[in-house]
Amino acid sequence: MSSTGTQGFCFPVRVYYEDTDAAGVVYYANYLRYMERARTEWLSALGMEIAVLEREHAVAFVVHRVDIRYLRPARLGDRLEVGVTVQELGRSRLILDQSVTRAGNTVTDARVTMACLHPAQWRAVRIPRPLLARLQQHA
Amino acid sequence: MSSTGTQGFCFPVRVYYEDTDAAGVVYYANYLRYMERARTEWLSALGMEIAVLEREHAVAFVVHRVDIRYLRPARLGDRLEVGVTVQELGRSRLILDQSVTRAGNTVTDARVTMACLHPAQWRAVRIPRPLLARLQQHA
Amino acid sequence: MSSTGTQGFCFPVRVYYEDTDAAGVVYYANYLRYMERARTEWLSALGMEIAVLEREHAVAFVVHRVDIRYLRPARLGDRLEVGVTVQELGRSRLILDQSVTRAGNTVTDARVTMACLHPAQWRAVRIPRPLLARLQQHA
Amino acid sequence: MSSTGTQGFCFPVRVYYEDTDAAGVVYYANYLRYMERARTEWLSALGMEIAVLEREHAVAFVVHRVDIRYLRPARLGDRLEVGVTVQELGRSRLILDQSVTRAGNTVTDARVTMACLHPAQWRAVRIPRPLLARLQQHA
Repeated sequence: MSSTGTQGFCFPVRVYYEDTDAAGVVYYANYLRYMERARTEWLSALGMEIAVLEREHAVAFVVHRVDIRYLRPARLGDRLEVGVTVQELGRSRLILDQSVTRAGNTVTDARVTMACLHPAQWRAVRIPRPLLARLQQHA
Repeated sequence: MSSTGTQGFCFPVRVYYEDTDAAGVVYYANYLRYMERARTEWLSALGMEIAVLEREHAVAFVVHRVDIRYLRPARLGDRLEVGVTVQELGRSRLILDQSVTRAGNTVTDARVTMACLHPAQWRAVRIPRPLLARLQQHA
Repeated sequence: MSSTGTQGFCFPVRVYYEDTDAAGVVYYANYLRYMERARTEWLSALGMEIAVLEREHAVAFVVHRVDIRYLRPARLGDRLEVGVTVQELGRSRLILDQSVTRAGNTVTDARVTMACLHPAQWRAVRIPRPLLARLQQHA
Repeated sequence: MSSTGTQGFCFPVRVYYEDTDAAGVVYYANYLRYMERARTEWLSALGMEIAVLEREHAVAFVVHRVDIRYLRPARLGDRLEVGVTVQELGRSRLILDQSVTRAGNTVTDARVTMACLHPAQWRAVRIPRPLLARLQQHA
C-alpha cells in the first residue's frame, strides 16, 4: 500500500462522495485531510504511531503552516497518491513537501510546517532523540 | 436566531459547499452535523453549555441511536431550520425528535436516542438533578 | 484489502485525526462516511463503479433511511472493518445491513435503505436488469 | 450577524464537536471550511449568491492557493470571527486576506488566492463587469 525511499513516502487515497462538493470536484479543505492521513501512515511506517507518541513521549506534531496550491481538480472515483518528503528537519520543527497526484500529474502540492509540541501545554518542545534519529535517516 | 417553546427549539443552518457532494445535494452524513449543532444550541439556550457539563458535572450526552429518513434533497445556498423536540426523558436517557425543514417542508427527520455518560469512563450515569429539572420543563 | 462471500463484503478503515472529536472518539456522523466508502467499494467489487452507473445507466443509489446504533466508541489509530450484507433487494430499493467492527467487536451497526433514483430528476426508477442480476447473485 | 466596511467583512462561527479532533482542538482543515463560509456570506452581502453566479454568469470563484498559519488553537464552544479583506483584485483573480479571531486574538490567518473560472470548462475567465464593479467598491 505504500513505499518509502529516496523518493519519499507515498500513500493511496480514493475519492468518495464525502470528499466531493456540488462543483463535482474534491472540496479544497479535504486535501488537507488526505495529507494528514499520509503523514500519519508515514510516521507509522517509521515506527512512530501518533497515539503512542503522545502517550509515551508526550509529544505531538502539530501543523503550524500550510502553503497549498490547487493545480487540477480531482473527481469522484479518482485514485490518488499522496506523497510525503522531508524538506527540512530542525530540533523542534519539521518541514514537509506533500503532493497529491493522479497518474503522475500533480493535483495539489503543499509545503507543510509542523511543530513538535507538548500536547497538554501546547508549547514547542524538542523532538525526542530516538524519533529525531529515525527522521534523520529518512530526511 | 432561535426559539424555544411548545413547538420545540429551532436553529437555522445554511448550506455551504462543504456540506454538498458531487450529486449536487447535501451529503447524507452532514445532516447529523446539523442536528448536533441544533442540540448544542438547544442545551445552551437551556443554560447547559456542553463544555461546562463535562467539566463541572462530569457528564456528556452521547448519541446511542439515530433513525433518520431522507425525504427531500437540500442544495447549495438553501436556508434550513433544524428542530429539536423532547420525545422521552428518562433517568439517564433522552429521546429527541429532530427535523430539518426548508420553507416548512421536511428535508429529513430523525429520532435520536442519547445516553448520559461519564465521559472518562464511558458508562451510563443518571442525568444530574438540576439538569433533569431544566429538561423536564421543556419536555 | 477486501473480501466478498456468504459473509458479505468487508472493507478496512483506519481512524485518523479527521475522524475524531474532542471527546476523543470517532464523531458519530463519520461512521456514515465509513459505511458509504464500504458500499462504494462493494459496488466496485461487483463491477459497478458509481461514476459509471450515473453516466451510462443514469441511475444513482441514494440513501433513503439509516437506523444506526452506536455500541462502542472507536478511537484514534483504530483499525476497523466495515461490512456490507444485502438484507432485501426490491425492484428499485435495496436494504443493507452494515456494521463497523474492531477485532470482531461491533462498534456500530446500521440498517441502510437505499433507493435507485434517476440522478437528474431525483425520482425512483427500477434498478437496471444487468445490475439487478449482479446484486441478486450476492444477496 | 456580520458587517462590511473599511475593516472588511466579518462572519461569526461557533465551534461544535464536528469541528474538533481528539487533540481537543479545531482540526486544521476545518478552518478552511470556516473561511469558505465567510467568503460565501461576504459575496452574498455584496449581492452575489454563488449559486446564482454559476447559473446566470457561468462563473465560479475557485481557490487556487492558500497560505495559512495556525497561531493559537480554538476549542469546543469557542465563538470565533472570520474576516475577509480584499488584498488584490485582478481581471480574473482575487486575493483575499482572511483571519479567524477569538476575542480579538488571531487563531489563524491566511492569504487566499481565487481564480474566476468557467465552472464546466474549468478554465480562467474574466470576472464579469458588474461583479468586478461591486468588488472594486469593497476592495
